[in-house]
Amino acid sequence: MLDQDVRLTEDAVRKIVREEVERAFKKDPAKKRMSLISSKGTLDWAYPPLILATAGAATGMDVAIFFTFYGLTVIHRDFEKLLKVSPVANPGMPMPVPMPDIVTALPGMTSFATGMMKSKFSKKGVASIRELIDVAIESDVRLIACQMTMDVFGYEEKDFLDGVEFGGAAAFMSEARKSHVTLFI
Amino acid sequence: MLDQDVRLTEDAVRKIVREEVERAFKKDPAKKRMSLISSKGTLDWAYPPLILATAGAATGMDVAIFFTFYGLTVIHRDFEKLLKVSPVANPGMPMPVPMPDIVTALPGMTSFATGMMKSKFSKKGVASIRELIDVAIESDVRLIACQMTMDVFGYEEKDFLDGVEFGGAAAFMSEARKSHVTLFI
Amino acid sequence: MLDQDVRLTEDAVRKIVREEVERAFKKDPAKKRMSLISSKGTLDWAYPPLILATAGAATGMDVAIFFTFYGLTVIHRDFEKLLKVSPVANPGMPMPVPMPDIVTALPGMTSFATGMMKSKFSKKGVASIRELIDVAIESDVRLIACQMTMDVFGYEEKDFLDGVEFGGAAAFMSEARKSHVTLFI
Repeated sequence: MLDQDVRLTEDAVRKIVREEVERAFKKDPAKKRMSLISSKGTLDWAYPPLILATAGAATGMDVAIFFTFYGLTVIHRDFEKLLKVSPVANPGMPMPVPMPDIVTALPGMTSFATGMMKSKFSKKGVASIRELIDVAIESDVRLIACQMTMDVFGYEEKDFLDGVEFGGAAAFMSEARKSHVTLFI
Repeated sequence: MLDQDVRLTEDAVRKIVREEVERAFKKDPAKKRMSLISSKGTLDWAYPPLILATAGAATGMDVAIFFTFYGLTVIHRDFEKLLKVSPVANPGMPMPVPMPDIVTALPGMTSFATGMMKSKFSKKGVASIRELIDVAIESDVRLIACQMTMDVFGYEEKDFLDGVEFGGAAAFMSEARKSHVTLFI
Repeated sequence: MLDQDVRLTEDAVRKIVREEVERAFKKDPAKKRMSLISSKGTLDWAYPPLILATAGAATGMDVAIFFTFYGLTVIHRDFEKLLKVSPVANPGMPMPVPMPDIVTALPGMTSFATGMMKSKFSKKGVASIRELIDVAIESDVRLIACQMTMDVFGYEEKDFLDGVEFGGAAAFMSEARKSHVTLFI
């Protein structure tokens, strides 16, 4: 430690500055912020934003999810009825037997795939969408519904879960520009 | 304020440094940059990169969009004919009545869904893709076409809108590594 | 350069600090890190994470890819058989002639589209998925399989390529919060 009476040289000052700057970068505020866009309205793509958001919040991050386009379905009051998964055009989806799209497109196949996914997730102890939403709200994850797409798709504020906020692309951007983790899901 | 004749102690220097560093983080240059990848070639997924880019540019951000894979369609001269939306395998899409994929896959359903989306967006006063592209170009948003996928899909430079630049993944990366907001759409 | 005997004024100290801070922001460690999520299990969407990761690693960045949901297919031992591309519900995909989804959904169309894409990429000199994975491993790109979705889809550690690590969403997050480039693909 330097004594109050000792003159600081430029070198000493630079050394102090480097220490302080290194410390500052270690606690860069952008490291503590996550801004997600949830844009898909299917059961499978409802999981990633909620799982990532709650995992981030659990480590003390400030998290916001902006729900836009089909993603509005995830925070709709009736999300449990509305969120389905289609096996069509998804050759990466594990099905009991391989099926061409003309079969996966038949009536009933979306219900079948939706039921299969829900049961697989629940058997393996993964939280349900309802549980993930509850945890997100309890951990102060901001759930923001995109006003522009609400208007286009004919949704009203009362159609959404309690705790949902309403805002535009600018609201998302003002969070995202301060965040290291920004993902469009 | 310290006088020119007063010696600065280490504590005084650290205080100055912390003030300067806090100020510097507030104007972190990464906060002013947005780098987007537009990879989908459908009407619905053409909106998000253009809406986010123009919203960012409106607040003074430096924005670049890298169009790759099917996203090349968005900046193709014939984008108005090429951009369509398919209702197949998208149970999150609001349709007049629920339909299984075997119905949404019928000839004519893509045109129907495309017309419905265009009319809904226009009725609600959302800018068209053409208007969004014009605003993007006027606000100096960089539109970069991926040379590798142009080559693979058989596109030439003359197939794209005026103002489009051409570059590879490295061009995107050199922008993105300086940006807080990076999204793959 | 200031002499050791000359007293530093506050102004001189602030000047030094600003120089050091500017230098520090130029080598912000977040600029050197890329954290990707690969979530799709189709041939087309296997390319972007691997192309971006290897391009980043080539410029000296520290890169991690987190494979989750259908993306686990990309690092499965049998990825060459499993990765296919479906032309259904993708009106942006260049096909020899335009086809409605009821045609693209027919048996054989996924194989046809998969073969067409592989041949186009190979003719244009684009590296294959196997080559990209090899380059990724050689350049120390971390390939992390999501344990939660492995469990849900019934995969075991032995099902994956050598060199793959295993971790949860928290493992991804601890990388991503230090990275400027974060993309969900």
